[in-house]
Amino acid sequence: MRMYDLILKKRNGEALSKAEIQYFIDGYTDGTIPDYQASALLMAIYFQKMNEAETAFLTEAMMHSGDVIDLSAIDGIKVDKHSTGGVGDKTTIALAPIVAACGVPVAKMSGRGLGHTGGTLDKLESIPGFDVHMSIDQFINNVNRLKIAVAGQTADLAPADKKIYALRDVTATVDNISLIASSVMSKKLASGADAIVLDVKTGNGAFMKNTEDAFKLASEMVTIGSNMGRNTIALVTNMDEPLGNAVGNSLEVKEAIDTLKGEGPEDFRELCITLASYMLLLAGNIDSIEAGREKVENVISTGKALEVFKTFVAAQGGDIKYVEDTNLLNSSKKIYPLQSDKSGYINRIYAEEVGLSALLLGAGRETKDSIIDLSVGIVLNKKVGDYVEKGEPLAFIHYNDEDKKDNAVEKLKTAYLINEDNPAKSPLIFGTVTREGIQRL
Amino acid sequence: MRMYDLILKKRNGEALSKAEIQYFIDGYTDGTIPDYQASALLMAIYFQKMNEAETAFLTEAMMHSGDVIDLSAIDGIKVDKHSTGGVGDKTTIALAPIVAACGVPVAKMSGRGLGHTGGTLDKLESIPGFDVHMSIDQFINNVNRLKIAVAGQTADLAPADKKIYALRDVTATVDNISLIASSVMSKKLASGADAIVLDVKTGNGAFMKNTEDAFKLASEMVTIGSNMGRNTIALVTNMDEPLGNAVGNSLEVKEAIDTLKGEGPEDFRELCITLASYMLLLAGNIDSIEAGREKVENVISTGKALEVFKTFVAAQGGDIKYVEDTNLLNSSKKIYPLQSDKSGYINRIYAEEVGLSALLLGAGRETKDSIIDLSVGIVLNKKVGDYVEKGEPLAFIHYNDEDKKDNAVEKLKTAYLINEDNPAKSPLIFGTVTREGIQRL
Repeated sequence: MRMYDLILKKRNGEALSKAEIQYFIDGYTDGTIPDYQASALLMAIYFQKMNEAETAFLTEAMMHSGDVIDLSAIDGIKVDKHSTGGVGDKTTIALAPIVAACGVPVAKMSGRGLGHTGGTLDKLESIPGFDVHMSIDQFINNVNRLKIAVAGQTADLAPADKKIYALRDVTATVDNISLIASSVMSKKLASGADAIVLDVKTGNGAFMKNTEDAFKLASEMVTIGSNMGRNTIALVTNMDEPLGNAVGNSLEVKEAIDTLKGEGPEDFRELCITLASYMLLLAGNIDSIEAGREKVENVISTGKALEVFKTFVAAQGGDIKYVEDTNLLNSSKKIYPLQSDKSGYINRIYAEEVGLSALLLGAGRETKDSIIDLSVGIVLNKKVGDYVEKGEPLAFIHYNDEDKKDNAVEKLKTAYLINEDNPAKSPLIFGTVTREGIQRL
Repeated sequence: MRMYDLILKKRNGEALSKAEIQYFIDGYTDGTIPDYQASALLMAIYFQKMNEAETAFLTEAMMHSGDVIDLSAIDGIKVDKHSTGGVGDKTTIALAPIVAACGVPVAKMSGRGLGHTGGTLDKLESIPGFDVHMSIDQFINNVNRLKIAVAGQTADLAPADKKIYALRDVTATVDNISLIASSVMSKKLASGADAIVLDVKTGNGAFMKNTEDAFKLASEMVTIGSNMGRNTIALVTNMDEPLGNAVGNSLEVKEAIDTLKGEGPEDFRELCITLASYMLLLAGNIDSIEAGREKVENVISTGKALEVFKTFVAAQGGDIKYVEDTNLLNSSKKIYPLQSDKSGYINRIYAEEVGLSALLLGAGRETKDSIIDLSVGIVLNKKVGDYVEKGEPLAFIHYNDEDKKDNAVEKLKTAYLINEDNPAKSPLIFGTVTREGIQRL
């Protein structure tokens, strides 16, 4: 077999066989296939697409390119949740303790932020003492004892995906749905969950800018998961404006804790309740989404979810006094209110611009090696559909550096579209995708 | 400027600017742009194509990536000829002395063979003593004295093209017309001719398998040459069966010399006369193609072209007794007649298969470092349209090694399509392309 022939075949629109895809993944992982042939193949895939079988072969080959975690030592059905990433998406921090409080084990491996989207690990590290590093044995032990652990990737999960993703990132071959689906699913499958709930974001702040593409991506991921014997369901959710009000590490942790306390912004709370209900459903913990919602609302209102969160934070070395009083969390030196220069209805808050503003403040990483400032960020004071008077604050900018603040203000101003029409509010959840098909809401 | 943005732009179907293409060529030549980004761009170009302006920018940037030869020290209009390559194409060897004998300077830089097509330098080295190495000063001096010199590339011509071609060769991005056109023309323009006659081959043994593609390639090359101020004309010619009868180095030199002596196969003689006439026309040496043909036929029949060839061979160190008696040329130990296993008309002789048979005998290079056997090759005894009796020789295989001969025989058998229908003979020349457009014959 020759890599040249694989490139030619795909370039000419033919489907690659399982053996050919395995040859590519093996050779690229061990370095015998050079980057320049891999990038030519990826660009050919961008144009000629992959069919369902090819996408499955690629996912499986990448999944088996490194460690495959065995979570069978954890009792019960392990349900994982994955979000395709967005601005202000602090879902895992509230969702994990909610689900654990309902009795379903949550063994979550999370990542760090890059670019305009944040990462769960960075956010959790806003709680002094909190440690995301642990061995796989500790991880399993924590889940068995407390029903919950959130850790960085200790194992070498899907190294082929890591290498291919890095190449796609510099060769303009990221945005192909089959490549995205196989990348996400290879890691999810390698991390050992029995069932998977996918939160596929759509809109300005998401990877998938339009809803139809998001449904396609969701369908491909659900198909892969189902074919690999994992009960998989996807929700296509709105990322046109940021999720909740807070964008920035400490600020988001505070918002997630508020939500566990029964407070917090309505859209974020609603998304947590819905995702939690689907996780409980896949775990066999409840019979219907309605029953799930009731159970979830109950663990929030009774404070049980908050208790689980505190236990979890303490178990991973965090100081729970910061949970009990979130005002103690690392906060910025100054706050600047961005005032509206006109009166009207907020028609759009471009999430990507908000994310980039937070990045300019120092809340995110421009490159993998950037050091982030956990205290800075943006808190939205108005969301889409709200009316704002001229001079009223649109958002509060939490900052430590005047120059960075000035840059962030300039960027954040471009995030708003304000006019006299009261906009139709777009839905939070566009629909669900299961192996049976798409259900639009 | 970032290479990533160039890849994305082309991938999305936009045209690259002159500055962007210059950035790519500069960066790729000096190594600051890595192979994997270059190959991604080339694959994007394969799918999205380049427009006329982009192709021109690319050609010019590659032309100026190395030395640009100044031939102004040679008196008169220097006309170059370039063939896109075929099987049995020994045209330069006869054409150059014919044109020189008509008084037009021929300053020809040629290449070596690779794969199933041969190279002029290898062929000329079949004449004992013949040396293709010379300095640029010697080269210019020879042309001024004798009107003719044929040399290897002494200067560093279009190194960007060399590097890009090597990458295209291993990433399945060779067969894009704009990339082929700019590759050929960047080298031709750097080698300093005032006018260029292009022989674009079409058919089974050529790079362009179908005639329409050949016309497209011819048009792109003529447009580039014209826009760069070089009078450029292209002929689209037949390479469905080999040109002439001989395939192999010594054998082809013999056939070219035969043609200079007024003998030689009809198709080869006709192509030489036509190409020579166009070269004279571009040089301003004659007023019409008809006048050119008359002049060319005259220098052949009077023996003047043969005399110029002998002077040229002697000037480059070759022994002219091999020209006077071509039977002295390096010949193989044995000759095997390939007999027809049926009677009928020759409908096809697949040129590529003939070229590959010669390669199997050792006449060509499988890789750049292969050592070639100048004496071996194939002489066709029948051409398309001829009738063959069962048992009559289709071709004579000149060989030195029994095993190689057996492999070549197996391959050569697959080159023939023989049946009872007398085929319509396809034309030798399909048409000409000038800046005014395509003229089909």
